Amino acid sequence: MQMTEDKLQLKHVEITSDFWQRYRELVVKEVLPYQWQVMNDEADISISEDPQNNGQDKNSHAVANLKIAAGQQTGHHYGFPFQDTDVYKWLEAAAYSFNYHPDADLRKITDNLVDLIADAQEDDGYLSTYFQIDAPERKFKRLQQSHELYTMGHYIEAGVAYYQATHNEKALDTAKRMADCINRNFGLGDGQIPGFDGHPEIELALARLYEITQNDTYLKLAHYFLTQRGQDPDFFDKQLAADGSSTDRDIIQGMQDPDLTYFLAAEPIKDQQVPQGHAVRVVYLCTGMAYVARYTHDQDLLDACHRFWNDLVKRQMYITGNIGSTTTGEALTYDYDLPNDTMYGETCASVGMAFFARQMLHLDAKGEYADVLEKELFNGALSGMSLDGKHFFYVNPLEADPVASKLNPGKSHVLTHRADWFGCACCPANLARLITSVDHYLYTVKDRTILSHQFIANRATLANGIQIEQMNNFPWEGDIQYTVHNPQQEAFRLGLRIPAWSSKFQLTVNGHADTATVQNGFVYLDLAEATTTITLSLDMTVKFMRANNRVNADFGKVAVQRGPIVYAAEAVDNQQSLGQYQVSPSDTTHYQFDQQLLNGVGVVTVDAHRAVTDDTTPALYTDQDSSQETASLTLIPYYAWANRDEGQMRVWLNRQFQ
Amino acid sequence: MQMTEDKLQLKHVEITSDFWQRYRELVVKEVLPYQWQVMNDEADISISEDPQNNGQDKNSHAVANLKIAAGQQTGHHYGFPFQDTDVYKWLEAAAYSFNYHPDADLRKITDNLVDLIADAQEDDGYLSTYFQIDAPERKFKRLQQSHELYTMGHYIEAGVAYYQATHNEKALDTAKRMADCINRNFGLGDGQIPGFDGHPEIELALARLYEITQNDTYLKLAHYFLTQRGQDPDFFDKQLAADGSSTDRDIIQGMQDPDLTYFLAAEPIKDQQVPQGHAVRVVYLCTGMAYVARYTHDQDLLDACHRFWNDLVKRQMYITGNIGSTTTGEALTYDYDLPNDTMYGETCASVGMAFFARQMLHLDAKGEYADVLEKELFNGALSGMSLDGKHFFYVNPLEADPVASKLNPGKSHVLTHRADWFGCACCPANLARLITSVDHYLYTVKDRTILSHQFIANRATLANGIQIEQMNNFPWEGDIQYTVHNPQQEAFRLGLRIPAWSSKFQLTVNGHADTATVQNGFVYLDLAEATTTITLSLDMTVKFMRANNRVNADFGKVAVQRGPIVYAAEAVDNQQSLGQYQVSPSDTTHYQFDQQLLNGVGVVTVDAHRAVTDDTTPALYTDQDSSQETASLTLIPYYAWANRDEGQMRVWLNRQFQ
Repeated sequence: MQMTEDKLQLKHVEITSDFWQRYRELVVKEVLPYQWQVMNDEADISISEDPQNNGQDKNSHAVANLKIAAGQQTGHHYGFPFQDTDVYKWLEAAAYSFNYHPDADLRKITDNLVDLIADAQEDDGYLSTYFQIDAPERKFKRLQQSHELYTMGHYIEAGVAYYQATHNEKALDTAKRMADCINRNFGLGDGQIPGFDGHPEIELALARLYEITQNDTYLKLAHYFLTQRGQDPDFFDKQLAADGSSTDRDIIQGMQDPDLTYFLAAEPIKDQQVPQGHAVRVVYLCTGMAYVARYTHDQDLLDACHRFWNDLVKRQMYITGNIGSTTTGEALTYDYDLPNDTMYGETCASVGMAFFARQMLHLDAKGEYADVLEKELFNGALSGMSLDGKHFFYVNPLEADPVASKLNPGKSHVLTHRADWFGCACCPANLARLITSVDHYLYTVKDRTILSHQFIANRATLANGIQIEQMNNFPWEGDIQYTVHNPQQEAFRLGLRIPAWSSKFQLTVNGHADTATVQNGFVYLDLAEATTTITLSLDMTVKFMRANNRVNADFGKVAVQRGPIVYAAEAVDNQQSLGQYQVSPSDTTHYQFDQQLLNGVGVVTVDAHRAVTDDTTPALYTDQDSSQETASLTLIPYYAWANRDEGQMRVWLNRQFQ
Repeated sequence: MQMTEDKLQLKHVEITSDFWQRYRELVVKEVLPYQWQVMNDEADISISEDPQNNGQDKNSHAVANLKIAAGQQTGHHYGFPFQDTDVYKWLEAAAYSFNYHPDADLRKITDNLVDLIADAQEDDGYLSTYFQIDAPERKFKRLQQSHELYTMGHYIEAGVAYYQATHNEKALDTAKRMADCINRNFGLGDGQIPGFDGHPEIELALARLYEITQNDTYLKLAHYFLTQRGQDPDFFDKQLAADGSSTDRDIIQGMQDPDLTYFLAAEPIKDQQVPQGHAVRVVYLCTGMAYVARYTHDQDLLDACHRFWNDLVKRQMYITGNIGSTTTGEALTYDYDLPNDTMYGETCASVGMAFFARQMLHLDAKGEYADVLEKELFNGALSGMSLDGKHFFYVNPLEADPVASKLNPGKSHVLTHRADWFGCACCPANLARLITSVDHYLYTVKDRTILSHQFIANRATLANGIQIEQMNNFPWEGDIQYTVHNPQQEAFRLGLRIPAWSSKFQLTVNGHADTATVQNGFVYLDLAEATTTITLSLDMTVKFMRANNRVNADFGKVAVQRGPIVYAAEAVDNQQSLGQYQVSPSDTTHYQFDQQLLNGVGVVTVDAHRAVTDDTTPALYTDQDSSQETASLTLIPYYAWANRDEGQMRVWLNRQFQ
């Protein structure tokens, strides 16, 4: 029987994965309440040690800023000009949680918050509490650093998500009024500002708003921001000159220091050959580019998406998915420059990379995009939060040492324990919204093909009654079972991802071995039976990975990976210094799942060697080799590091030398 | 025949070493004229790219500042408050050059300069042109950052050296008047300042002045500065409060940021367990401590000398002798923290380390001190200057890459070519004075023992007519020949150093093999014959050195050393990236002296391997090893790097892994 419609539609995805259910419930039970407390200045936390603190004290004041703007209380704005976004990202995270864990108490809070936000919004749709409270005359006048469109973009995302989850019209209306305000103020028409925000975000937010409203205005506005970026390299300087270029006039100290590449605004995107600058700006911009390109088919944008993706993934990404090689400007540096101990690897950049990967999957059915998405979900992004949901990393190093962080100023930005909160608190809620929305990241539907590209156990229901059930114990086991119920026996195509880390795999369909060839990382099955059972066995061998040998920092080193999980050695399981262990790809490895450890993790041990620690008394340099001993090296998943005693950690292990 | 006096006295040392004669003539012919031009703002130079530039333009203005202070011209002071020291170190270097290369034209300039300095000096002996010209009311009121005693200390050194070389009484008189001024103003008496300078130097300078004048006042004053340091941890803060603690009042921007350990002033020296803070401050202070301890026998100071020496040499020193692991504060970090690509290794710190080593040799006849002195002379200090004498390194990295320096902000302080000059131009003249005075660094005389601890060919004459001639082709060949003429056949003891890098050696005395045992790095010969010929054959095998395996940055790496010379690979001789070469201590090496290369250097080639550069298109991480090829790796002496085409350089080579 043929499909009655020419497109498949995903209706609902229920996550059944133990691994992800635990995280998703953690967000509901711990993360959201904790963050709400913090944003209401009711949590007993310490951010004094936070290198991203920027001189702030321990208050967030984020909710208070909205109340002041709404006229419900008095006082000055406090915090960064984008402090509002902490609230919006939290609201967005909460909205997604209602899809799997409705909670009446939380719902009361979020409905009230939607009201508060609407009350804080100006009649013309403008909303940025810093400017409303303390600098109303400077609205849209210092976009290089104002983050106004960034801030409103985050609300638009939250408003869309909240409307989708709850059908709260006000939430969406506030978003539309914001977008309309921006649309009136920005553009190349008379009296409009021919500019764009220093921090991309509005582009992807407007694309989301377009998706739900189908109002072309928003898509066009998003496209405008993407094509206008960098057209006039003097735009920021002109605004700064008009608003007062003295640094006393700065809204964020130091924001006049970076050059235009930091803002991806030195030239039009179509002319930018490689992504440069602030890593989070890069991935937010890329997400917007891919999102808008999907609907506009703008070839310049499509080309830029592929160009930037390729450079990021092939030349600037850590094995954990983290990006950002330097703390200076939280930025990318240059191809193959991936130092492990002075790096940045901001949590937000990994979250944003997941956004970008998801959008790229809509453009092309390439397993590579899903590989990176998976990498972020199980490594680089996930490491941003502690197992208790109350401590966070802003910086995610691949090699860390508490002594180095304390005593070498070049590593002072690298924390070796997760912090309670941050002065610039972009990361915690960003990760929360990724986790609560992870059900949006498992499938990509295009016409009559549905790609199942993540091995997160789930039950997906399509509009036409098709149900795809995926069962597994991933990421610890590689046996993936699908049962597809297709009551109307409609013909459709199911693409199953074969991860790059599993070049070997076995596939059976209804008990028969299938020999489908891998096309761009997917095997495709044409299904039309009422019930189809599929088993996919992935290669869960422990692998010693190495970097392209152009990566100086990783030469002579290997990292252990099993499935999508990148492993790390921690001091608590091993002898310090971890740098004295030496492993060889020929070393025997053992894998065991330990239910008691770190909420249940697969542990890898390597029959390695270890240099016997030299004495402190002889000369510092010698021509005599040190002696070695056999030593078992214990590794845990990278995402779970820094949940026990503080100590050294490293992903890249020294190879056994001759 | 017994000696008529109970002490030996060194009268004159003539350097005959080809290697050092070239450098010493270079200083006379190129360095001194060039630096004089620069200090008079007559050189066509560029310091714009200099990370130590601190926003200055290309003028030095150092001589002009003195002229203004002397009333010979008008205007404001320009440059750092310690700009005067550029002139003083230059004068000191010139003074030493007269000992081996008298030059009437230069002598006219230096005599006039001595007059100018005397004219610039105030009636009370004070001399610091910044304060005299632009802040007379703030003299001695902001010692944390004023560098006044540091500045005057450098003059005192120059004045003593100039007097010793030329018998110019005015030069010495100016120094004494300075010291007297300081003596009146500082101390614990009524109306005196109970403080000390933020930058040590005056201590060692006063000890030199004491040596030549035998005036106890100067020794006591030096001792006061050493014992008073850190006694009142609030001293600087009290002065800052009185002088105005606003950063607008700062004489050097940012100087209020570092904590007291940066100034070695957090506690009394006797309580400081390890050297911390600014590396140059550390070694200048150590030199003063050892100098003063020699004459005062202060046990606290002696203990501190040994404690600091041990920590610096055994735990904080690069194989080249460089110290200072971080650019932040140009500082030491912590034990075994020796990153090669983000390090500082300031030239001045190596020069200062040579000062410290020389003083330690006066305290104890230990070869270890002479080993470090040699290390600085042939590596860490010498690398500060180009072979043409007109370009200088402030920072001396052990691993460098022009691309990294340009594009990774954490390495922006690492230049990969020597600069014309620096805004803070402490290094060039510091190295010049070390080179012109290297004849002072070859022997240490104590009672009736003379230690010959450096293998720099020379002819030394002692007061009693003994002449020690050392002939060699060091550092390229290890055969050292001594002829000792002892016309009066006085009995004395000659100590010959056996370097730590030459555990194997052969010694003959008058043609007979000698089996003297090594005591603390020296073999001792009791000589009383009219003529003694000695041959010492040192082990010049090419050695693969490794660091103590507590040094994380060097684990799995080796450095090549031959004799005292540490070798480096440069891109110009090899394929990039240098990180892709792999060597094993079992690799065959070849050594050849190349007279045409870099003014004549011994070149080492290693029959090594090289990873075939990976393609850029596959995934960045893989479990497949890259292929290797045999590859000859060419190494040149570290001191001579960056004298040809700009490119990568590295001292620590990756070991061949399994």
